Amino acid sequence: MPPAYAIGVDFGTNSVRAVVVDCADGRAVGTAVSEYPSGERGILLDPRDPHLARQCPGDYLDGLRASVGGALAEAAGERGFARDRVAGIGVDTTGSTPIPVDARCRPLALDPRWKDHPAAQAWLWKDHTGAEEAAAITETARRHAPHYLAVIGGTYSSEWFWSKIWRCLKAAPEVFDAAASWVEFADYVPAVLAGVGAPRDVVRCVCAAGHKAMYSAAWGGLPSKDFLARLDPRLAALRDRLYAHAYPADRPAGRLGAEWSEALGLPRGLPIAMGGFDAHYGAVGAGVRPGTLVKIIGTSTCDIAVAPGGAAPPDVPGICGIVDGSVMPGYFGFEAGQSAVGDLLQWWAGGVCLGEDDLHAALTAEAARLRPGASGLLALDWNNGNRTVLVDPRLTGLLVGQTLHTTRAEVYRALIEATAFGARAIIERLTDRGVPLQRVVCCGGIAEKNPLFMQIYADVLGRPMLVAGSPQAPALGAAIAAAVAAGVHPGFEAAQQRMTSLKPERYDPDPAARPVYDELYLMYRELHDVFGGAPGAPAGSLPTLMKRLLAERERAVATAAGAAR
Amino acid sequence: MPPAYAIGVDFGTNSVRAVVVDCADGRAVGTAVSEYPSGERGILLDPRDPHLARQCPGDYLDGLRASVGGALAEAAGERGFARDRVAGIGVDTTGSTPIPVDARCRPLALDPRWKDHPAAQAWLWKDHTGAEEAAAITETARRHAPHYLAVIGGTYSSEWFWSKIWRCLKAAPEVFDAAASWVEFADYVPAVLAGVGAPRDVVRCVCAAGHKAMYSAAWGGLPSKDFLARLDPRLAALRDRLYAHAYPADRPAGRLGAEWSEALGLPRGLPIAMGGFDAHYGAVGAGVRPGTLVKIIGTSTCDIAVAPGGAAPPDVPGICGIVDGSVMPGYFGFEAGQSAVGDLLQWWAGGVCLGEDDLHAALTAEAARLRPGASGLLALDWNNGNRTVLVDPRLTGLLVGQTLHTTRAEVYRALIEATAFGARAIIERLTDRGVPLQRVVCCGGIAEKNPLFMQIYADVLGRPMLVAGSPQAPALGAAIAAAVAAGVHPGFEAAQQRMTSLKPERYDPDPAARPVYDELYLMYRELHDVFGGAPGAPAGSLPTLMKRLLAERERAVATAAGAAR
Repeated sequence: MPPAYAIGVDFGTNSVRAVVVDCADGRAVGTAVSEYPSGERGILLDPRDPHLARQCPGDYLDGLRASVGGALAEAAGERGFARDRVAGIGVDTTGSTPIPVDARCRPLALDPRWKDHPAAQAWLWKDHTGAEEAAAITETARRHAPHYLAVIGGTYSSEWFWSKIWRCLKAAPEVFDAAASWVEFADYVPAVLAGVGAPRDVVRCVCAAGHKAMYSAAWGGLPSKDFLARLDPRLAALRDRLYAHAYPADRPAGRLGAEWSEALGLPRGLPIAMGGFDAHYGAVGAGVRPGTLVKIIGTSTCDIAVAPGGAAPPDVPGICGIVDGSVMPGYFGFEAGQSAVGDLLQWWAGGVCLGEDDLHAALTAEAARLRPGASGLLALDWNNGNRTVLVDPRLTGLLVGQTLHTTRAEVYRALIEATAFGARAIIERLTDRGVPLQRVVCCGGIAEKNPLFMQIYADVLGRPMLVAGSPQAPALGAAIAAAVAAGVHPGFEAAQQRMTSLKPERYDPDPAARPVYDELYLMYRELHDVFGGAPGAPAGSLPTLMKRLLAERERAVATAAGAAR
Repeated sequence: MPPAYAIGVDFGTNSVRAVVVDCADGRAVGTAVSEYPSGERGILLDPRDPHLARQCPGDYLDGLRASVGGALAEAAGERGFARDRVAGIGVDTTGSTPIPVDARCRPLALDPRWKDHPAAQAWLWKDHTGAEEAAAITETARRHAPHYLAVIGGTYSSEWFWSKIWRCLKAAPEVFDAAASWVEFADYVPAVLAGVGAPRDVVRCVCAAGHKAMYSAAWGGLPSKDFLARLDPRLAALRDRLYAHAYPADRPAGRLGAEWSEALGLPRGLPIAMGGFDAHYGAVGAGVRPGTLVKIIGTSTCDIAVAPGGAAPPDVPGICGIVDGSVMPGYFGFEAGQSAVGDLLQWWAGGVCLGEDDLHAALTAEAARLRPGASGLLALDWNNGNRTVLVDPRLTGLLVGQTLHTTRAEVYRALIEATAFGARAIIERLTDRGVPLQRVVCCGGIAEKNPLFMQIYADVLGRPMLVAGSPQAPALGAAIAAAVAAGVHPGFEAAQQRMTSLKPERYDPDPAARPVYDELYLMYRELHDVFGGAPGAPAGSLPTLMKRLLAERERAVATAAGAAR
């Protein structure tokens, strides 16, 4: 059999990366990265509103063309490669990143009339302008449809689909009115490749629908019109213009159409895999399977696990998503995360210590000379809120135990440890609720470059820490989906068996460190439960303290703004 | 009447400063500073024991000669000055700094046989080698003589007289056995000036005796032999070789003897004021009186207040000393303090941010642009424990409220605020217990140089913050005591009226800041009471958390030391 290749295209926050991989072993034979040209590192910001983060949909199309073109050009140097041996193409993106589109399924922002309107762009995952709307959705669901919340951790986020669309309705009704429909970025790119000409023809993935849009077959798809009408009747009316079904990745999203066949120089009719979120396809590319937690460690961390599908999924409070088929067909996908990991270390090294990038290496080297417990410090990893298991963005950081001799490297280590304790809280929640996990596979720069970080995690988690073989797991995962969609492999499990690997480095728990970290973890949980207001925590006023400080801060900022006017 | 002058000599931790002042107005006409030459900035350290801090008594004598000589030389340029117009000399020192002496009242360390023995030196106030002994003294007193603890805040400190002598007995019995007696630094220098030739002839001040040696007329002087015998029979035996009486500063400690009359070129028979602690005479020099709290703000802060004497003193739990006549005759003296103020800011600016001295100015300038509450941060000021009102050296720092945007200047301001909240806790304890305070007078470099610090204190404390007119308040206070001892003024009040002043700068509470700081102070008290284990705080395990972290740290250090052997 001649070799077969698959293309995976990973749309990240600042750039798009395409890889051409060999379906026999997952080896990358061509890779190219293209930065989004608009705004600040690809993001449109608003100096008056730090919560706003949008992107130009046009950048996505340019980046698709450039990255796939570059990867194919590099692959051309591979012996045995030819474009007609490409079996399929798969795509992953950030999300929830909804895009308002017109009746022909073209993003409004590509229309000259709407080109410069901020609300007509893609609403990037980290746009938080819909915080009020998110709170109102949570409150309404709590009263009238608590089952909607049960599978998303109990709280609807400002980062998600409906918060953003409702926000658009309120803040820019002209855009809302002009939009024929809204399409998730992850569904949009496959639809573009397939040449879809109407929103109703877009094949929606259950990954975005289930994790971000409160879609579930259990209640007939998207939230009911009754529910949406409680938010706003115009949202209820929009429901008919969205979609009735969403699908796992066990079928193709379509086949390559004429326009993009020509643009990319790939065979017309090429199978296109279902679009998926970067973290989900990253987990596939890192080898996720029952018993394995995949941690995608970056500025924040996304945790993905799967459990065999079929019966009702386990109920895991605080886990932000449990969706049938969202990661791989035939499994429940679990999504959890920590809001700041690399960002927390960067805050310390760059923001407080004002160091350049090389300070991380110096602090790590010094922190590596400390024994567990020797700093006397304990921190909470909530400088950007807590995504799992408390699901509360209005929590803040805490550091305790400092003396006059406390060093910056001791704090650095304490912050690494804090993120490891936060990771343990997530794992314990999953295993306590019936999702057993024996090993942890990591991907991302920190996992590849910081052995101290990985060893601390192994010691705190009490599990081997492994590193995914591919440094570009999301793109590889998208390519795996393409290989499955194309029938090169009979299913995801078989494709992963062949196409994924682990790095030889492996971090095993140090038996001497375990008891110390077990005790420190218990102390972390005391702080976590009290300051996080966890159910069953001791009473007192501390559970509200962080929020009261935030309120003081907001009052002070409002007063300053008032005085400046 | 021809002008009269008084000399004040202030023995600090690293140097000795002498001033010659005009008794009419307190103006300094001559000043000189002499550094102690031995050890590190005058302190003998032990690289193997960070708790050890000793000084060479010989440095004290050399410094006395050099500083007084220098001040007199400068005063010689003053029109109308003559050495025979010096009416008296007064001395203040650090303390508790006990010195082992021989039968002729010479420090053992001046004997060639003991010259290099660390235990034969002066045991500097900040020597903490007697921590175990302090705990045992506290425990013994709690069981058998709780009245001893009532006036010293409930806990006997490792920095104090008996802890150090007992430690010497245990760690260096040969020095304990060789010592005929022990003399406080503050009593030693006046005795040297007077040419005292035997320990029993040293006139002891009630300041050191009452605040540090558990002396009180109420129980017949020093702790009873029975009590001391519970610690060690040899301490009970030592009691007879110490002193039976201690006196307030309403009488001279003696008159200048032949040897030092010649050495200093001052009239023989010159009245010598009672020795006192630097903070106490500093308070005198800053104008302490009923209703005024004097804050001596340095690396740590010492707070001094007085209340009219006569009836029984108010009971103020957590205040580390309440002694009749300790600050001024006729008043109860109250001593409180914070273990880290300047040190806390220096830890941040120098230890964490690794800045040079000028970073304080930059951080202050940036912090000054923030409104109260705008940082969203709250800190506990316990990086060096809590001296008042919790009296617990085994407490540590805490910072809460940080986000990914928190800056070093925001933390710096939060640390200033934390020390101000700690200062408010002390003032509230005093005023709640019957020691009314209307104004706060500060001295020290921070008070003179950092208007932001002073304004935050005014806003947090809700009281005007004033700055003492003299930058060398302790030496001025010692000179005032000398002027009173010499009869130039009829009493301390009259002398203060003439010889002390305030700087024209004054910091009044900003009405807009008060409500914000009132709320933040309540939150500080929540953390303070819970983490400090204050009586009546909500239950739970957090009150022991800092101590458990310290225990983890000590175990880790011990393990590392064991592994290194």
